Amino acid sequence: MSAASPAPGQRLVYFNGALVPENEARLSIYDSALMFGDVAFEMTRSFRKEQFRLRAHLERLLASIRWLQIPFEHTVEELEAICAQVVAANDPLFAADDEHRLMIDVTRGILGIYNGRVDVPGGTNLIVADFPLRWTVEGSAHLYTDGVDVVIPQQRMIPAALLEPKVKNRNRIHYLMANIQVSQYRGKDAWALLLDPDGFVTEGSGSNFLMVKDGVLLSPEPRNILRGITRDYILELAATLGIPTRETNLEPYDVQNADEAFFACTPFCLVPALRFHGQPIGRGEVGPVYRRLMQRWSEVVGVDIIGQIQGWARTTTHTAGGATPYSFAAPGTGR
Amino acid sequence: MSAASPAPGQRLVYFNGALVPENEARLSIYDSALMFGDVAFEMTRSFRKEQFRLRAHLERLLASIRWLQIPFEHTVEELEAICAQVVAANDPLFAADDEHRLMIDVTRGILGIYNGRVDVPGGTNLIVADFPLRWTVEGSAHLYTDGVDVVIPQQRMIPAALLEPKVKNRNRIHYLMANIQVSQYRGKDAWALLLDPDGFVTEGSGSNFLMVKDGVLLSPEPRNILRGITRDYILELAATLGIPTRETNLEPYDVQNADEAFFACTPFCLVPALRFHGQPIGRGEVGPVYRRLMQRWSEVVGVDIIGQIQGWARTTTHTAGGATPYSFAAPGTGR
Amino acid sequence: MSAASPAPGQRLVYFNGALVPENEARLSIYDSALMFGDVAFEMTRSFRKEQFRLRAHLERLLASIRWLQIPFEHTVEELEAICAQVVAANDPLFAADDEHRLMIDVTRGILGIYNGRVDVPGGTNLIVADFPLRWTVEGSAHLYTDGVDVVIPQQRMIPAALLEPKVKNRNRIHYLMANIQVSQYRGKDAWALLLDPDGFVTEGSGSNFLMVKDGVLLSPEPRNILRGITRDYILELAATLGIPTRETNLEPYDVQNADEAFFACTPFCLVPALRFHGQPIGRGEVGPVYRRLMQRWSEVVGVDIIGQIQGWARTTTHTAGGATPYSFAAPGTGR
Amino acid sequence: MSAASPAPGQRLVYFNGALVPENEARLSIYDSALMFGDVAFEMTRSFRKEQFRLRAHLERLLASIRWLQIPFEHTVEELEAICAQVVAANDPLFAADDEHRLMIDVTRGILGIYNGRVDVPGGTNLIVADFPLRWTVEGSAHLYTDGVDVVIPQQRMIPAALLEPKVKNRNRIHYLMANIQVSQYRGKDAWALLLDPDGFVTEGSGSNFLMVKDGVLLSPEPRNILRGITRDYILELAATLGIPTRETNLEPYDVQNADEAFFACTPFCLVPALRFHGQPIGRGEVGPVYRRLMQRWSEVVGVDIIGQIQGWARTTTHTAGGATPYSFAAPGTGR
Amino acid sequence: MSAASPAPGQRLVYFNGALVPENEARLSIYDSALMFGDVAFEMTRSFRKEQFRLRAHLERLLASIRWLQIPFEHTVEELEAICAQVVAANDPLFAADDEHRLMIDVTRGILGIYNGRVDVPGGTNLIVADFPLRWTVEGSAHLYTDGVDVVIPQQRMIPAALLEPKVKNRNRIHYLMANIQVSQYRGKDAWALLLDPDGFVTEGSGSNFLMVKDGVLLSPEPRNILRGITRDYILELAATLGIPTRETNLEPYDVQNADEAFFACTPFCLVPALRFHGQPIGRGEVGPVYRRLMQRWSEVVGVDIIGQIQGWARTTTHTAGGATPYSFAAPGTGR
Amino acid sequence: MSAASPAPGQRLVYFNGALVPENEARLSIYDSALMFGDVAFEMTRSFRKEQFRLRAHLERLLASIRWLQIPFEHTVEELEAICAQVVAANDPLFAADDEHRLMIDVTRGILGIYNGRVDVPGGTNLIVADFPLRWTVEGSAHLYTDGVDVVIPQQRMIPAALLEPKVKNRNRIHYLMANIQVSQYRGKDAWALLLDPDGFVTEGSGSNFLMVKDGVLLSPEPRNILRGITRDYILELAATLGIPTRETNLEPYDVQNADEAFFACTPFCLVPALRFHGQPIGRGEVGPVYRRLMQRWSEVVGVDIIGQIQGWARTTTHTAGGATPYSFAAPGTGR
Repeated sequence: MSAASPAPGQRLVYFNGALVPENEARLSIYDSALMFGDVAFEMTRSFRKEQFRLRAHLERLLASIRWLQIPFEHTVEELEAICAQVVAANDPLFAADDEHRLMIDVTRGILGIYNGRVDVPGGTNLIVADFPLRWTVEGSAHLYTDGVDVVIPQQRMIPAALLEPKVKNRNRIHYLMANIQVSQYRGKDAWALLLDPDGFVTEGSGSNFLMVKDGVLLSPEPRNILRGITRDYILELAATLGIPTRETNLEPYDVQNADEAFFACTPFCLVPALRFHGQPIGRGEVGPVYRRLMQRWSEVVGVDIIGQIQGWARTTTHTAGGATPYSFAAPGTGR
Repeated sequence: MSAASPAPGQRLVYFNGALVPENEARLSIYDSALMFGDVAFEMTRSFRKEQFRLRAHLERLLASIRWLQIPFEHTVEELEAICAQVVAANDPLFAADDEHRLMIDVTRGILGIYNGRVDVPGGTNLIVADFPLRWTVEGSAHLYTDGVDVVIPQQRMIPAALLEPKVKNRNRIHYLMANIQVSQYRGKDAWALLLDPDGFVTEGSGSNFLMVKDGVLLSPEPRNILRGITRDYILELAATLGIPTRETNLEPYDVQNADEAFFACTPFCLVPALRFHGQPIGRGEVGPVYRRLMQRWSEVVGVDIIGQIQGWARTTTHTAGGATPYSFAAPGTGR
Repeated sequence: MSAASPAPGQRLVYFNGALVPENEARLSIYDSALMFGDVAFEMTRSFRKEQFRLRAHLERLLASIRWLQIPFEHTVEELEAICAQVVAANDPLFAADDEHRLMIDVTRGILGIYNGRVDVPGGTNLIVADFPLRWTVEGSAHLYTDGVDVVIPQQRMIPAALLEPKVKNRNRIHYLMANIQVSQYRGKDAWALLLDPDGFVTEGSGSNFLMVKDGVLLSPEPRNILRGITRDYILELAATLGIPTRETNLEPYDVQNADEAFFACTPFCLVPALRFHGQPIGRGEVGPVYRRLMQRWSEVVGVDIIGQIQGWARTTTHTAGGATPYSFAAPGTGR
Repeated sequence: MSAASPAPGQRLVYFNGALVPENEARLSIYDSALMFGDVAFEMTRSFRKEQFRLRAHLERLLASIRWLQIPFEHTVEELEAICAQVVAANDPLFAADDEHRLMIDVTRGILGIYNGRVDVPGGTNLIVADFPLRWTVEGSAHLYTDGVDVVIPQQRMIPAALLEPKVKNRNRIHYLMANIQVSQYRGKDAWALLLDPDGFVTEGSGSNFLMVKDGVLLSPEPRNILRGITRDYILELAATLGIPTRETNLEPYDVQNADEAFFACTPFCLVPALRFHGQPIGRGEVGPVYRRLMQRWSEVVGVDIIGQIQGWARTTTHTAGGATPYSFAAPGTGR
Repeated sequence: MSAASPAPGQRLVYFNGALVPENEARLSIYDSALMFGDVAFEMTRSFRKEQFRLRAHLERLLASIRWLQIPFEHTVEELEAICAQVVAANDPLFAADDEHRLMIDVTRGILGIYNGRVDVPGGTNLIVADFPLRWTVEGSAHLYTDGVDVVIPQQRMIPAALLEPKVKNRNRIHYLMANIQVSQYRGKDAWALLLDPDGFVTEGSGSNFLMVKDGVLLSPEPRNILRGITRDYILELAATLGIPTRETNLEPYDVQNADEAFFACTPFCLVPALRFHGQPIGRGEVGPVYRRLMQRWSEVVGVDIIGQIQGWARTTTHTAGGATPYSFAAPGTGR
Repeated sequence: MSAASPAPGQRLVYFNGALVPENEARLSIYDSALMFGDVAFEMTRSFRKEQFRLRAHLERLLASIRWLQIPFEHTVEELEAICAQVVAANDPLFAADDEHRLMIDVTRGILGIYNGRVDVPGGTNLIVADFPLRWTVEGSAHLYTDGVDVVIPQQRMIPAALLEPKVKNRNRIHYLMANIQVSQYRGKDAWALLLDPDGFVTEGSGSNFLMVKDGVLLSPEPRNILRGITRDYILELAATLGIPTRETNLEPYDVQNADEAFFACTPFCLVPALRFHGQPIGRGEVGPVYRRLMQRWSEVVGVDIIGQIQGWARTTTHTAGGATPYSFAAPGTGR
């Protein structure tokens, strides 16, 4: 990968040791990533430009790589340094109130039969990109007040025995299909909540699900879900706030009869779910447990989390234009 | 995508209307292909430089695109013309005895949140690449005589209700995991045969499975498998040869007690499976039904199919070098 | 049950030997029918006032009664006579072009603990009601030309091992839940098609599903479905027309890629399904197999089946008024 | 529904605003209740004529109605008032030592196609009936000393993903089939205990199951069961008595090796299960945990619960007469 | 194993090359047979002292041995010779009208840790015993006229993916548990019919199930069943008699509504099933298809099959005495 | 069973009341044990010649017998006395540093049809054998330092609903098949870890699995596993050491990411698992929790557990010789 000098103002991406212009951060069609969805990845965010729980992300990345048995040499410490390098290189292009969203991809590289035959370097690819968090969230800032509508699509979660969701990888067409189905739902601001084949609640198509009942913060057993770093943090926060938590089997009936419900994901932190197939959850309003969690989190990181995102929303001029359908609908996008 | 003039001798790839050098046939890391494995694709082969059942491949591609609801305008006829254009452009670089292996990828393009923000064109991508078939097959030519060893990994096939295998897409880590597991098997020339969660035989990690018992050519019900074009052709060929065929539930016991067994895939056509977990299937030799099928097929296309591949194997100098592990092991690769 | 003299023009219902006014055809809240959904039933239709395949309906009713082990003495012949009696009694109230829709219910009667304590006769109830077929169909006559949109709800069919659908009974809340879910679908004229827990196509919420692919009329294996009398007749008709038929596992992919599809049910006979989640099935038009089947059926019974229903639709003045939601949506209603 | 003056001594039933004689509390054969088993319901009991946990029953009723999406306006408070009205109207007909058993049914009313055509009012029906508890229990008073024999029928519980048992409705033929199967068991006083398809213990056909092992009161996870109000109360009682409780997966092996076991249901409160397929559970005698729970409960409500029922049994003259088979066998009947 | 001279009149058993007295045909408690149920076996019968389809039995035995990977050297021909030797040695002890029932066991021998340490020879054991068929059948001769009552126990068949029933081995406690459960059924002459976990009919606890509907002889798909040699022969016989046959998914509903049903097993050939949970199947009488099959089979082998067994029954003096419960109840015992 | 005087130095086995020479401890081929794997059993060990938790073994044995409904009269106390008798009789033949491994088998005896016909006593068999523990363990002493490699075979555990693993019986071919599959794994010292059909970790083929994560000792829910006495003891030990424990659903991902893992079984107590499919678990070394558990256990029983076994290994001269394959591979063998 040659490191051509980028157009002025173009972000830089770490690509196997070099910093390349963002539009050069591309993968060969012969890469295992494109042949098998064979990518271990992470996506992060910062608060006040400081990465949040970066180490937890990187350790999960290494666990994913080990599961997929992708040859890989870097240590957590080296990865941290690379991330810092990428942020430093791009920060000048970011607004003062921007946050850094990193995307870290590890692919196995081009398949063996192409090796030495096509003019593409072989071996594992490590890629770290960086873009403003506001891109991901500004279009959905109203959800903090309006809440999302939880909708169960007919697409079921692929259980871990067949495709391990705890290994964060790019085999995610089932999430996309869930989004497509939910896009046909009559209501607005609907997010998919996938059931596993046994009918238990798992997760959203890009977020974890949690709910409150009788004062207890409930989440699905960490089984047929990605064990989200946001989710883990919420459970820790709750403990510090004296809110009891429990992991258990949840079903649609439980969601319909919850006192509060929310989706946890890296870019949004926590999004209130105020409706279930159009019917109000609890009183249909943002609830006290949600407020306490978000307030404390904001205090810890020194950012008015919701306010910051709503601020971006007020000032955005972006329209998706000719963008692909359904890819918009990947709600939450990442844990 | 700029169409830079390629290095001399570099193959050309159709990329959204242009022919670009092969090493420029790359996809942005923000493409839905890399975010979700969101690619409909086909891989073909020629006989005597003529594409085999190209229309069937293209119709299946359109069905996959429709399932995934990727916006797409091209007709089958247009796709045929594009394929012809690609072959014509590359043929001068091919040896006289080479065959053309086309890879046709359709991706949804970059996600909506990146649209207009990163310097990458939005919208659906159509890519058609072309490379010598010998790359895929020459390392395995000995299998025509030695046969493969059928090994059942613990990874199960993801059933169609959760991830539709009849839609040819790049969510295939379960195939890769099966290959990794089989790579730990003590014997040699082992190919994975995946069972579905009910324990029925489905397919290889890049091929369909067929077997002969008491004179009948048996194949799994076309359910939790890709409905391979090679498989379909074999069933047709058998009919013309007066060999009765039946689709039915097959189990490992049936494989162990088969008279003959084989894997069907586009590049190899038909590979004999002569062992099951190291024990001989039937007499452990290439059987009469296999011979009849391959002989007739060779006659129809005017190529000594096996001889051609064995010829390539004798003259190859390729070594995979630093290539990624397990990606070699994607046996058959494509139907 | 006292047989009060009915209001003038009120239909009569056979109720345990007596003919009672329709509004007196009621069941005690202590009846097993209301405690357990414990009712074996059938619904029929006539052509030119002649009941169609009444004997098949009655034999299936007896099989249902035997399964549920409801004490019952009547023979098929006696039931035929009762049906004839009901039709004769009501026909004067019917228009000349009306058809008779019979509803035959058999309930176990009040539970033992109420017997002799509440002023309600004990023992099995046999009820035969009769009303104009036009009620059921006139609101949906446009479907013969517009076709229905096949939508898969997340509610799955209860498999026969848990609740036998071949036994026609009133445990049908899963059909109702499917209808409620489909009512939230964005498109119009949507009918639910239920999958079983394995993901195979079963039936609509009040109809059987059939489809055509490559000239063969396909229907699900008669397993997790009611074995509809209309469905059976269609398969017979096809045979007489030289259309090959096959019962097999069908999946959503097959429906999406069908050449034609339709729902079979007693009141409508056959309704064309022209869309699958909004996308056209085949060419999105009523197809040739559908036309041949309906034409032949019309000839056999001497009624222009579609024309008759469209005629009713043109002249109706009925509006559902304060009627219950979703119960409208029981598409097809009965086989 | 006309409110005819009842026969002297006939109980009155609340029916959509009016009090009607019990034998007029009937539903049209065209009611959704009879077409789909489409009824949300509750059954209660009193202690010393005071309703027990009526509010919990009514809140569960509202949750069931919301699940089924039956249009319904009444608040919990209004429902409480209606119940009080019904009890007051009927109490003069009850013996001094009788308890009031209420049955509250909510149905969606007649289907839309019948609306305005048959002489039956449309819209949701709310029905509250009231009869002496002794009817339900007096025939089984001996079970307090003899205990029941737990028998596992081959009918499995329908899992919540397919039919939500936490929504109390009238789709219950699977309970009836279980009772029919158990009626063929050679032993006496057998009650069905249903397993779910995974083989875990769920509940009886009209009661919840609990057991004691090593001093801990165990109950199935509240998943594939109705979350019985009696069950909830028992778990609360145990806590106040210092008996540890746990919800967990239970299997037949656990039942066979339990120290104590019992069924919880509204009319009986708690029935000891002393045998498992004819073999003694524990010592085959009523155990200490059972005694403590029942004693405390009796103290709380000021009624010798068992003694009262045994008293009724000694004085009853009721025989089921021509009542329907198997409906007797609905053991427990209600939580 | 020492070959002590047998008591006069004692049958001889082939045991690893020697003929030993029957009471010496024993296996060490350290044998893999007793540690794992690790035995491949077959049981046969003769007609007029000639073994029936012995070769089919022996080939299935070899397939079982191969599946279990027991070291084994003998060919089919050698096994045939051994069987002949055993029959010849024992025939003098048999009555003139006796038939020879052979039991052929192959075990892996004592586990490795005991080898050379306990005074028991190591290595594979081959055992062939021979006893009069009448022992097995004479107690059940009345079933040819009375028929058996088909009862479905709650024990389900272990599916082939977990324990391959096509491999005839001694892991059969699930059959025993089924028999124990059926022994608690109220009726008489009940035989268990096991369902698989999906609810499909598989087989009896020692026999295959077949049924007739509308003139077609139906049997379960040869999947979760032992592929019985009797069953295979019946299907062949039917073909020669012009009776159409089909392998398909069968459910309890199908059994209840069958025209005829029967169990196929080696010792009895074919036993009519005339009741299903006490209710008549068809007319509740031995049917025409049954009669034709048994008549033809009797002609082919030159034995009045039923008459011979009924003759034995009339003259037997055997009583089971202190024999173990439930082991009687292994109905059919062997295919 | 005659009690012949044993060869000098031959161990004695309790066999239905008598002590017989070990090579006479054999079961008739007609025993239900050999026909159905119909054996309840236990295997124990001593520390310093004292049986460990013998009563727990015997109580579990009685539970197994009750499940299988084998007629049996002995009390726990009688069984204890018999075990003591066997140990006393054999101890003179044991080395001073030997430990006693008892094997207790209970079989139903010969089937009823053989009773009184073959010269073998009928009725339940109780057998207690005794041999040096070193036989079982000495060949694997290196595992205490090298650790085992956890490998997941494709054979799945039979779930308890189909074959109850908590009932210790001889239906164990699925364990053997797992061992055969693992014997084809390329690495060394591999032990099978079976998943249930849902993909959850169950147990080894002769041992229980436990692991440590973040300081908590985790074990599978006691569901689809034998509830091992060693496992129970480890959980108790951990409690006394202040190590928190939890029973939960475990998956391969959890095993791969464990801090420590081990197998618990009677003869070895606890074997460290240091690799998962060849990759290190944690640091790939024996961990601190393991050390603490084994040290405390050694203190409690006054034996250096590991040292004793390693001592035996240094002095053994045994070679398995002609022993059967795979039976060696039954790792752990017993809990």
